[in-house]
Amino acid sequence: MNLRPAAEDLLAGLRDFLGPPGWRAPDDAPEVFVDDRDRFTGRGALVARPGTTAEVAEVVRRCVAARYPVVPVSGGTGLVGGHLTMTEPAPVILSLQRMNRIRAVDAADNAMIVEAGAILKDVQDAAEAADRLFPLSLASEGSCRIGGNLSSNAGGVNTLRYGNARDLCLGVEAVLPDGTVFNGLKRLRKDNMGYDLRHLLIGAEGTLGVITAAALKLFARPAESATAWLAVPDPEAAVELLHFLRPRVGDVISAFELIDVVGFGFLEEAGLDRPAPLDPMPKWSVLVECGGRPGVAEALETALGAAFEAGLASDGVIAQSQSHASDFWAIRETIPVANRAVGAVSSHDISVPVARAPEFIERATAALGAFDATLRINCFGHVGDGNLHFNVYRPKGADKAAYAMKSEDVKRIVNDLTHAFEGSVGAEHGVGRAKTVDLVRYGDPGLLAAMRAIKAALDPHGVMNPGAVLAAL
Amino acid sequence: MNLRPAAEDLLAGLRDFLGPPGWRAPDDAPEVFVDDRDRFTGRGALVARPGTTAEVAEVVRRCVAARYPVVPVSGGTGLVGGHLTMTEPAPVILSLQRMNRIRAVDAADNAMIVEAGAILKDVQDAAEAADRLFPLSLASEGSCRIGGNLSSNAGGVNTLRYGNARDLCLGVEAVLPDGTVFNGLKRLRKDNMGYDLRHLLIGAEGTLGVITAAALKLFARPAESATAWLAVPDPEAAVELLHFLRPRVGDVISAFELIDVVGFGFLEEAGLDRPAPLDPMPKWSVLVECGGRPGVAEALETALGAAFEAGLASDGVIAQSQSHASDFWAIRETIPVANRAVGAVSSHDISVPVARAPEFIERATAALGAFDATLRINCFGHVGDGNLHFNVYRPKGADKAAYAMKSEDVKRIVNDLTHAFEGSVGAEHGVGRAKTVDLVRYGDPGLLAAMRAIKAALDPHGVMNPGAVLAAL
Repeated sequence: MNLRPAAEDLLAGLRDFLGPPGWRAPDDAPEVFVDDRDRFTGRGALVARPGTTAEVAEVVRRCVAARYPVVPVSGGTGLVGGHLTMTEPAPVILSLQRMNRIRAVDAADNAMIVEAGAILKDVQDAAEAADRLFPLSLASEGSCRIGGNLSSNAGGVNTLRYGNARDLCLGVEAVLPDGTVFNGLKRLRKDNMGYDLRHLLIGAEGTLGVITAAALKLFARPAESATAWLAVPDPEAAVELLHFLRPRVGDVISAFELIDVVGFGFLEEAGLDRPAPLDPMPKWSVLVECGGRPGVAEALETALGAAFEAGLASDGVIAQSQSHASDFWAIRETIPVANRAVGAVSSHDISVPVARAPEFIERATAALGAFDATLRINCFGHVGDGNLHFNVYRPKGADKAAYAMKSEDVKRIVNDLTHAFEGSVGAEHGVGRAKTVDLVRYGDPGLLAAMRAIKAALDPHGVMNPGAVLAAL
Repeated sequence: MNLRPAAEDLLAGLRDFLGPPGWRAPDDAPEVFVDDRDRFTGRGALVARPGTTAEVAEVVRRCVAARYPVVPVSGGTGLVGGHLTMTEPAPVILSLQRMNRIRAVDAADNAMIVEAGAILKDVQDAAEAADRLFPLSLASEGSCRIGGNLSSNAGGVNTLRYGNARDLCLGVEAVLPDGTVFNGLKRLRKDNMGYDLRHLLIGAEGTLGVITAAALKLFARPAESATAWLAVPDPEAAVELLHFLRPRVGDVISAFELIDVVGFGFLEEAGLDRPAPLDPMPKWSVLVECGGRPGVAEALETALGAAFEAGLASDGVIAQSQSHASDFWAIRETIPVANRAVGAVSSHDISVPVARAPEFIERATAALGAFDATLRINCFGHVGDGNLHFNVYRPKGADKAAYAMKSEDVKRIVNDLTHAFEGSVGAEHGVGRAKTVDLVRYGDPGLLAAMRAIKAALDPHGVMNPGAVLAAL
């Protein structure tokens, strides 16, 4: 890497090239320099807001010619600082927000072509208008953008059935770090002509190029869906219950969320109380959803009856209407809001093999208890994928600063154990700038060497999102 | 690339290192120098048959130190010569066939760990023994091996529901071109810690490293499945029928094969006659299969009744037993055998966007008719994925050599049209050595440049499978 310091002629040229709608001064676009939890901030010399792929390519070409850093920003909701750099020289921020068109929805192809700046909710809505389902669904879907979802390979609640963002993408258009455009928007189900550059760009968090558009997979909308909240004896029973239900409802379970009763206490503590779905709320429960042909609700009810008999669940409520199901999901989605209000000592977006998740919860809880018995744990999330939000909190009313000092130790305990369980310390949100050290600490050496070689080959001057994923060496 | 000519000391050292079970003289392993249609042949200086990943790594390290080419071979069923080189120096052939262990089947994780040399059928059987489904299914499943399936990103008949080989893989272990081992066998559903090297190695056909083992996804076995053979008015109705059926059976259609009546004529011509499923056999029919919770057969029957009323199908038979369904599939799988017996002027493994497949068939048929009205076309295959086997034959009894001369023109007509339809000229089988020119002709320039940069970065001496995918420049 050999980045040149601020080049006023480059910036002036970009302002001139992009024209009034195509750029903003950093002070006029403060929203691109924060994440939505205000944990990180960034800096920039100019916010470029190109309106076309050709303009993106020209911005990248000019920056690389000047050896000047470019940091792409999409919705800014990734939570790991992937779009936020504090380093010098202050980069050109490449905002995709003006490129937000749905270029085409082709129901007969079960495919749509969208620009990177399209908001996820708008993508979902456009699919629904064509009687199709785009299943990616996240808490931030009202503000995150599809380019960022792909660049970070977002997960969410429907991964269990439909996969991560990468699994929902048939092709991408991208500007590579030398400014060439990769025209990979083919919407094919089978194509083995060459290396899969799509999958390399997905999850690379803008360090190997900028995704400008994507061809997305659509699905038939379920004719009927069913949602239930179930009391389970423990996390092990939860995993068993998942396997028990799957064949009985036809392998169409789309969500299977583990809920810790601690989350309900946090809702109360944060003044966000909602009626509990079960009375009493057990220590552990699961929120399950499935969708399929008519009769799937009845199939779920029958299967749950058998699960009760098998001792895999002890209480449960099946949502009686779409609005009842929405109430369940509102609880699920408000728990993270309550968590933030309570304020974590350390939050973890980890995954382990599904079958080992119960043992992980037990071992991690014990290890933290041995470290500091006063800590509170709220462990919840996508247990069907082995993806847990294992979050650690100080006691109610305790001094925030005193516990903040324990943050690094707590993180190390959870992450080391995750690694020992052959897990990932960045399951849904990626590396960004928050986990570059963790990537080096826990990453396979063969992977790291290959990543560095690929980065150097595609971006020899290190202009694309420097400092993200692979920290400067 | 700077490959050294045959180095007898390298070969002697490898023989010594691997010991008697670990190597063969080329003359003693003729099966690794052909493909299963005898269209290509290869050469080699030594057939290395390592038994462990560490041995594979040592073979690669020694070859790269000597700048000597290594050509991996798996089942040898890929049909595009990916494992067959005729260039000098005759390479070290790296056979994975001894590494055929099922290392672990974890039903509770819906995952299994297998070595690259495991035969696909054995993998399927091991999954079934644990009451799980590994859905990859191909005509060659009795002899192809999972390492080759992944290296070529194999497709097959269940792609419609379960995806291609890459979609069924949670992680890989591989030896990279410098001899380091990439330990990527984590069996996680969500992991965003770094670039996705797995997806880069899958489909790279051994040019970026050798996959030695894989973590595979398993699924619940369908409690009930249903198979039907249906007469459709034309290919357009076939695609409409797919979308019509999907929501009605709960989006669980796993196969949707278009059949041209020409295929039945070929069965007769090849002396492979089988009872036709419909009487009369229409010009176009589809073989459909779905699997799910009990009642899926009834759901299919009901949906088909509605499809008949909507004019999307005019006749049909639902298999009345598993053996009846097997008869249907035996017909489907014998058609390619008959095709080979008849002998194609040119065969094409192409894909186009699903919705455009009907128009493609019409246009390609017309273009070939204008070129030579005597040509016969058998177009069949995975229309639900837009993946057609569009094969062209001489008239019955016509001179083979005279028509062989038309082969390149026919290929160009079909491939040019495929490209004009935003399709792929290598949908299931990859590039190998047969389609390196096609990759350059039809491939996106941005993709090709990135591929060359990645290849040079990971394999600077060009030892891994030289001449495959990216032809020597």
